[in-house]
Amino acid sequence: MSPNLPPALAVLPSSPLRIAQSIADWMAETAVERDKAGKTPKAQRDVLRESELLALSVDTEFGGLGQSWAVTLEAVRILARADSSVAHVFGFHHLMLATLRLFGEREQWAPLFEATVREKWFWGNALNPLDTRTLSTPHEGWREFSGHKSFCSGALDSDMLIASARQENLDRLVIAAIPTSRSGITLHDDWNNMGQRQTDSGSATFERVRVDEREILVNPGPLGSTRATLRPLLAQAILTQIYLGIAEGAFETLRNYVHTESHRWSLSSADRQSNDPYALERGGEFFLALSGARALTEQAGAAFDRAWSSEDRLTDTERGETAIAIATAKVASARAGLDITTRMFDVLGARSTRADLGFDRFWRNLRTHTLHDPLDYKTRELGDWALNGQLPRPSFYA
Amino acid sequence: MSPNLPPALAVLPSSPLRIAQSIADWMAETAVERDKAGKTPKAQRDVLRESELLALSVDTEFGGLGQSWAVTLEAVRILARADSSVAHVFGFHHLMLATLRLFGEREQWAPLFEATVREKWFWGNALNPLDTRTLSTPHEGWREFSGHKSFCSGALDSDMLIASARQENLDRLVIAAIPTSRSGITLHDDWNNMGQRQTDSGSATFERVRVDEREILVNPGPLGSTRATLRPLLAQAILTQIYLGIAEGAFETLRNYVHTESHRWSLSSADRQSNDPYALERGGEFFLALSGARALTEQAGAAFDRAWSSEDRLTDTERGETAIAIATAKVASARAGLDITTRMFDVLGARSTRADLGFDRFWRNLRTHTLHDPLDYKTRELGDWALNGQLPRPSFYA
Amino acid sequence: MSPNLPPALAVLPSSPLRIAQSIADWMAETAVERDKAGKTPKAQRDVLRESELLALSVDTEFGGLGQSWAVTLEAVRILARADSSVAHVFGFHHLMLATLRLFGEREQWAPLFEATVREKWFWGNALNPLDTRTLSTPHEGWREFSGHKSFCSGALDSDMLIASARQENLDRLVIAAIPTSRSGITLHDDWNNMGQRQTDSGSATFERVRVDEREILVNPGPLGSTRATLRPLLAQAILTQIYLGIAEGAFETLRNYVHTESHRWSLSSADRQSNDPYALERGGEFFLALSGARALTEQAGAAFDRAWSSEDRLTDTERGETAIAIATAKVASARAGLDITTRMFDVLGARSTRADLGFDRFWRNLRTHTLHDPLDYKTRELGDWALNGQLPRPSFYA
Amino acid sequence: MSPNLPPALAVLPSSPLRIAQSIADWMAETAVERDKAGKTPKAQRDVLRESELLALSVDTEFGGLGQSWAVTLEAVRILARADSSVAHVFGFHHLMLATLRLFGEREQWAPLFEATVREKWFWGNALNPLDTRTLSTPHEGWREFSGHKSFCSGALDSDMLIASARQENLDRLVIAAIPTSRSGITLHDDWNNMGQRQTDSGSATFERVRVDEREILVNPGPLGSTRATLRPLLAQAILTQIYLGIAEGAFETLRNYVHTESHRWSLSSADRQSNDPYALERGGEFFLALSGARALTEQAGAAFDRAWSSEDRLTDTERGETAIAIATAKVASARAGLDITTRMFDVLGARSTRADLGFDRFWRNLRTHTLHDPLDYKTRELGDWALNGQLPRPSFYA
Repeated sequence: MSPNLPPALAVLPSSPLRIAQSIADWMAETAVERDKAGKTPKAQRDVLRESELLALSVDTEFGGLGQSWAVTLEAVRILARADSSVAHVFGFHHLMLATLRLFGEREQWAPLFEATVREKWFWGNALNPLDTRTLSTPHEGWREFSGHKSFCSGALDSDMLIASARQENLDRLVIAAIPTSRSGITLHDDWNNMGQRQTDSGSATFERVRVDEREILVNPGPLGSTRATLRPLLAQAILTQIYLGIAEGAFETLRNYVHTESHRWSLSSADRQSNDPYALERGGEFFLALSGARALTEQAGAAFDRAWSSEDRLTDTERGETAIAIATAKVASARAGLDITTRMFDVLGARSTRADLGFDRFWRNLRTHTLHDPLDYKTRELGDWALNGQLPRPSFYA
Repeated sequence: MSPNLPPALAVLPSSPLRIAQSIADWMAETAVERDKAGKTPKAQRDVLRESELLALSVDTEFGGLGQSWAVTLEAVRILARADSSVAHVFGFHHLMLATLRLFGEREQWAPLFEATVREKWFWGNALNPLDTRTLSTPHEGWREFSGHKSFCSGALDSDMLIASARQENLDRLVIAAIPTSRSGITLHDDWNNMGQRQTDSGSATFERVRVDEREILVNPGPLGSTRATLRPLLAQAILTQIYLGIAEGAFETLRNYVHTESHRWSLSSADRQSNDPYALERGGEFFLALSGARALTEQAGAAFDRAWSSEDRLTDTERGETAIAIATAKVASARAGLDITTRMFDVLGARSTRADLGFDRFWRNLRTHTLHDPLDYKTRELGDWALNGQLPRPSFYA
Repeated sequence: MSPNLPPALAVLPSSPLRIAQSIADWMAETAVERDKAGKTPKAQRDVLRESELLALSVDTEFGGLGQSWAVTLEAVRILARADSSVAHVFGFHHLMLATLRLFGEREQWAPLFEATVREKWFWGNALNPLDTRTLSTPHEGWREFSGHKSFCSGALDSDMLIASARQENLDRLVIAAIPTSRSGITLHDDWNNMGQRQTDSGSATFERVRVDEREILVNPGPLGSTRATLRPLLAQAILTQIYLGIAEGAFETLRNYVHTESHRWSLSSADRQSNDPYALERGGEFFLALSGARALTEQAGAAFDRAWSSEDRLTDTERGETAIAIATAKVASARAGLDITTRMFDVLGARSTRADLGFDRFWRNLRTHTLHDPLDYKTRELGDWALNGQLPRPSFYA
Repeated sequence: MSPNLPPALAVLPSSPLRIAQSIADWMAETAVERDKAGKTPKAQRDVLRESELLALSVDTEFGGLGQSWAVTLEAVRILARADSSVAHVFGFHHLMLATLRLFGEREQWAPLFEATVREKWFWGNALNPLDTRTLSTPHEGWREFSGHKSFCSGALDSDMLIASARQENLDRLVIAAIPTSRSGITLHDDWNNMGQRQTDSGSATFERVRVDEREILVNPGPLGSTRATLRPLLAQAILTQIYLGIAEGAFETLRNYVHTESHRWSLSSADRQSNDPYALERGGEFFLALSGARALTEQAGAAFDRAWSSEDRLTDTERGETAIAIATAKVASARAGLDITTRMFDVLGARSTRADLGFDRFWRNLRTHTLHDPLDYKTRELGDWALNGQLPRPSFYA
């Protein structure tokens, strides 16, 4: 076992969520300094490699833990409470595995799943569908990927990549599963943002990268069947858990700090800040928003598991209603979190702004991540369903 | 069957919630005019008497339908979408039955339950604990109730009453189950409020009313055991369903009207109002708030059923957590509803203010009912739990 | 002096705003019952006829009081605090006078101004530009107006009308100033809405109404010059004052009632409701919103006076910036008011919902009136200015 | 002229606000990197020393610019748009000068004012009244100050200090004006917070610092007369300008970036992001909030000038109403800014989170600074005035 491993991991019962919690506790200790440093959370990713959590969503027949998506998503949330960057690369690892399954054929994903468990692979993302600068040129039995791609979360320090390229005259992306070490791939350490600073979300360059036809996920391919359109829903469900996890982490921080460090205001009628009438009302408002987001997020996770289990019997309507459940949870979690991570300071007081506490990271992480795709257009999607009965049109963002 | 009965009632399968829906549809047709008229919804109460819905929560051994509280509460919500006044008297009827059960002894409530089913009794409320003007004076084997009492919802046109009086030197209310026709009781037709206009929530006068000791619920009595403290939680759960039902009714109204009557604004880029970008975003916001409130309300109903089923094993902590679940749902429903019933008009447009449409009744009903006990203090209760782990102290409002 | 006149009017110094206040105080006494009754506020309009306030904006050379628009608008607000229906017909009377001035020639408006003062005329509105069902057919020296028109505020019980009709192949409305008693005009007593119930905003029918060419305001005509486009701005400024006046009236009502009738909640730490921590915070929030709206509304009034005084030198940019000032004040007042008229009840408590208090009329009046044109599109207008420097395109609503 | 000086300063006409704008423009170029670095903005403070802006509020008879407080406050706001840390030390420099005037005697402040202009002194703050760890021990003709003090904004790199100490058995603070270089004073470079990172708000240690009696501001002393209680109002007015300046700076940044860098969302009906319907509505909402805050802040500045000019004739009521005007502007500015600095990103999009843009600094600066004293208690203060007519009780925070 690596020396990086949190001690508790050795002794804890092997329940995956307990392990996730143990890793979260250990990551929390360094979250503030790592937020400042940015760069790859190498030690944290290695601990995840050593834990079995990278195999959480992999079926037991391939050596995985065979857990439901609800459990996998909860693991994402547990990690996000402590470190939303690591939660993101972890969640997207599982999204990449699901991508194999949803876009490819069994002959493709079965061996990759086995290898993932056996080799403790961490999968990274080089798929950003909005960035179409990488081109795919067909050759006999293989394709060449060349170009640039931004927002490749988790690609740095990954073992395998899901990469996309655009082929002229083709109406969908060409998507491939390839080793990160493949010749011609350069991952740039150029991610330096105001939040989510350890997500390794830098850019990648593909220089005449050779991609074998068997590495291309073409049947059914991206969004190529109703079931394949579950992929963006899983992506959105992971984002939801991260938003909610950040909000929950912020609230836990508030609860701990208010009892130990916060001073009551001189005009307060209360004996201590945690009994101040306005602190109590803010606390109630935060709890209210969190409770609503939590209930919706749990419903969304269950809905996704149901849709996933339907396999090829999944109807467009079932898919659409799952999309709505997830979109609802996502906007609710984002809005709850943005409010809590800003107004928590009104309860905490002036001294809580010390840089070594790093309490601003909750807002910075959440604000950065909630821009993944616009909240206003998600809300509009909900409105089109609520007013017009129109289900979201499947895309990479819905 | 009374000529007042909605025709569908005769042919529908006897599922209680279908019956509730059928009655709701029938009530909706006259909701605007009855809102204007105020007074007792006599025909509507009689239809409820004829339906089996007054026996919904009564155990099957007494001839009732033996439904869970979740089902009974959903029936309240279904009625509230169409008519929140009738939903209130209906919900409080079941609250009165629960009061018998929680505050009294089996010898008291068992025969009353049987009679309720057999005689199609409608129970009314004369309990308002904040109004302490009615006094109880002890005599040999009976007590005299004398005084005034306000906010006696559903008492007018009731068959039986739960009435309270204050006895000096006693630390809790004296609560009795007595026939509405008992000599000395006068129910005043003096309820005339801006909303909930058919709740018969007028005042009552007790003039030397004779109450037999056997009619007094003394063991365990009001809030006299942990289980007995479920009563205020049921009251709060009923209010929650009514708030949510009003909000849902308003939203359904919006959805119907926007497709048939609303005009797009001249500057809108959309082809019709239901596709206007701002209409869609408002619709999404309303759906979001409703979905959160709905998820929390359903959780609260399930929590209440669990607490109820625990019988005397119910712990203070379980009771407290049930209280929190209900309080959360209540504040969420109230806030969602106040927002929707105000801003729905921004989507509906100027022509939707016609008095014959009566769309303002949603706001008037909700605003009136959400003042039952202050939302700010409910939110504070949630904050005390969230920040300090303090469960609500049982009272008539928590 | 008419017996309807408020006694104070006789003894008060003749300052127009004092007279407005005196009339407002007198109207307040019957506002609740008149809100319930709807119909024409005949007595109130007659008192306005007897007062000099109908001549407030008329230049002194025609016998008017020659007051600035800021003063006229403040009179509208003073009346709106007590009765926003009467404030509306009063404000629109002055809008009709301004319409004469802005759309017509001196030979047209000069004698009409004199007659307005001399004959104590009340002008009514039959101009609704969105309702194009009334047609104008040209004849030799006159036109025939025929058709229907909705939302004719203040037309019933008026002496003179500004009426519009659509002429085929003409790109703007034909607008005329004609006596209400002109043969062929029928004003329908069909206004029955959830708010603004005494604005006489019913429909009108024109049956072959003969309109002399000299009665038509054609030079510069509707929106026919930069200066002429001040008309919609004055309309919007009047709406702003009414919204703010309703909000101020609601707040005054709250302040009075909370000291006399409201009970503190049993859990409050305060000695009385007006010292309750949440009542104080709500009060502060309401004051904050009102103060902001008031500051913006006063700026808007001053801006309008400046634009008006510029006469034909008014530039499109000055006109546009005036439009922005008024739009800002309008949305701020509407939003402040909708919040206050809903949440005031949280401070007031359950007993404040009694129908005889009629406190819901603030919300009903404001909600009805704030739908005149959509707030969302006004906000968008502000955004186009703030983000893109785009001034509003003159129309009947901007 | 120092090489640090912004070039424009040499050629601009000497209008103080133009100079302030020129310095702001120059500071903006390095604001992101200096925010990251923290520490003293030495070059910026030296430029302020070289400009005449440190003499802005000093009467002309002492060589100052003799500008009104409205102008001085506007200079604070201009600087805050670009750099709210420098704006803070600049504003508090003038607050320290006002403190001399309000708490001391003419013989004390007249020579200090002259020296301030002549020597280009920058005054720093060591007054924090909530930190009572510094004690004053009386001796014959002098006092000893010993102890620690936190939140000493602008003390580092200052020339003179206003310092406070607590004397046992004395009901108010002992406040003195002393050279920063006085033996025994150590200013710690220990300010490292999430925002306002260049305010030099570290702690100070006083080790047997000798303070001459003539350096103590004792007549009227801290809050020793109605006029003396204007000091906290000036402090609050300065905070208000900084909050509003940050919000304005954020909005300007949004407006510039949205036209150059933001991409429209793929589902948007608009041609570019600045025309997107939701971008426009957000822009309108931000403009609305800014306009209201601006109007209130300008009213507050004018009110403060009036109160200041009243000198010893200032009544408690005038003082109180000035306090309310400033508190209103402060809460409005804080709330507007917190909203804009969070939601601006919804308009800007995901790419705007790049660390080199540093757009999160607006939120971090504002969030840090708006905790100076609790917004909830300021709102409560407004409520006590609005509901109960109670003016704020003078203190160091009101």
